[in-house]
Amino acid sequence: MIYDAAVIGTGPAGVSAALNLKIHNKNFLWIGSKTLSGKISKAERVENYPGLPGVTGAQLNEAFRKHVEAMGLDIHEAMVNLIVPMKDHYALTAGADFYEARTVILTTGVAAAGTLPGEEALVGRGVSYCATCDGGLYRGRTIAAIVTNRRFEHEVKYLAELADRVYFFPTYKDAARIAENVEAPDARAVAVEGEARVSGLRLSDGGTLPVDGVFCLRDAISLSTLLPRLAVEAGHIAVDRRMATNLPGVFAAGDCTGRPYQYAKAVGEGNVAAHSAIEYLAESGKAR
Amino acid sequence: MIYDAAVIGTGPAGVSAALNLKIHNKNFLWIGSKTLSGKISKAERVENYPGLPGVTGAQLNEAFRKHVEAMGLDIHEAMVNLIVPMKDHYALTAGADFYEARTVILTTGVAAAGTLPGEEALVGRGVSYCATCDGGLYRGRTIAAIVTNRRFEHEVKYLAELADRVYFFPTYKDAARIAENVEAPDARAVAVEGEARVSGLRLSDGGTLPVDGVFCLRDAISLSTLLPRLAVEAGHIAVDRRMATNLPGVFAAGDCTGRPYQYAKAVGEGNVAAHSAIEYLAESGKAR
Repeated sequence: MIYDAAVIGTGPAGVSAALNLKIHNKNFLWIGSKTLSGKISKAERVENYPGLPGVTGAQLNEAFRKHVEAMGLDIHEAMVNLIVPMKDHYALTAGADFYEARTVILTTGVAAAGTLPGEEALVGRGVSYCATCDGGLYRGRTIAAIVTNRRFEHEVKYLAELADRVYFFPTYKDAARIAENVEAPDARAVAVEGEARVSGLRLSDGGTLPVDGVFCLRDAISLSTLLPRLAVEAGHIAVDRRMATNLPGVFAAGDCTGRPYQYAKAVGEGNVAAHSAIEYLAESGKAR
Repeated sequence: MIYDAAVIGTGPAGVSAALNLKIHNKNFLWIGSKTLSGKISKAERVENYPGLPGVTGAQLNEAFRKHVEAMGLDIHEAMVNLIVPMKDHYALTAGADFYEARTVILTTGVAAAGTLPGEEALVGRGVSYCATCDGGLYRGRTIAAIVTNRRFEHEVKYLAELADRVYFFPTYKDAARIAENVEAPDARAVAVEGEARVSGLRLSDGGTLPVDGVFCLRDAISLSTLLPRLAVEAGHIAVDRRMATNLPGVFAAGDCTGRPYQYAKAVGEGNVAAHSAIEYLAESGKAR
């Protein structure tokens, strides 16, 4: 089945886009986290989301979650690794799963951390973004896992079942103790090393850990990795006033399109992106 | 005193812009209606304003009003007739009052009705948008008043005190009986007639009422009348992604910038317009 739309991301922009696709009876796939936005929840107080005065970030996120629930929307918990343009639609891979959609709405936020030096050059040669896809390649080997969100810990556990030894680099506090063969060094990962393949991970203490693979499990992967021909300007997705990107049928909304990083801007852009996708579907439907 | 900003309009875009200017401690003038948006209040149900599921339009407007109140924001009840660019700021006239501001944020909505044929050509020659300013010119004469909102009825009453006879054309239901010398014909006004000056008002029943002046008291006046050099595309204010218009220091947000006509889009654009105005103030401050 080819979906009408795939919405990638469950922050305010994704919520707004999904509500509008639902109201317009579109058959769409919504990919992200059922807890919606981890970033909002950390905001101490939000004074400028019109209609909800003086809420905490957690209260605003909960208001969004209740709205999503009231509208009967389903969220597919996954992380999209790659989007490939096909003839008149897009193919999406999320872990070992595969989906197809006629339009894509990107609401991926701003990556909390950028990629590491050396990382992009070694993608597919020891650098992986998907434990499920590539874990099997590291049976009995030594790997590192750089993890930005607690919800990826089960993937580290899965990697630990396969690999001989896992060096675990959580970028958040109070990470879980995962398994006997998982060690969390007391330093940050600063660069991926290797020529033909990954050979090691350089640390903030100046040392280098010899590893065979590096798994980067982040909330957002780099846009150039996700959708290679997407036009990007100064680190943000380039869009027009309709939230259309340079790729036909691909729209973007929220922090990933640029400043100001604001909830109100994100919901506004999500709304516009959904309406533009609906219009695109109507027009491309006519053209067939 | 020259304000940092003038926000014209109290719909969702105006509310969002005003909240952000307040948070950034700007000294700004907010002009519009204390009841905020008459248009929202008429919406039966709004399903897609994220965070407030299944509200009526009246409930959403009330949520906005409470937020405005909680933030201690003042609304100046007036209607801006004309905005004139000065050397490094703008002069605004609202009725008989006069204001100055370094930046202007237009959130004027979409005019419920367009201008009448003949109207724009006779502005200042019998066509007026301001009872307070021009009423005195029609002592003992016969005039027509085309009125789109109940809140302008006191202006019609004022006109009736001056003019000999007033033909009253409310475009809303259940208009008040205003005075003895105010008559509401059973037809719509369709065109303003006259060569050098207004001579009459053509009606939908084919007849023409001979009048000396026509007062058009609308929620929104035409953009070309309000700010003559403002770039407009297909009836909407032309803006870039920062909500900047073609005029330096003038920004726009909400329905006046184009479709989709959505509350979420309006609050998003109001937020961006305020941030752009704040940035403009910082940069032009440096340049002095």
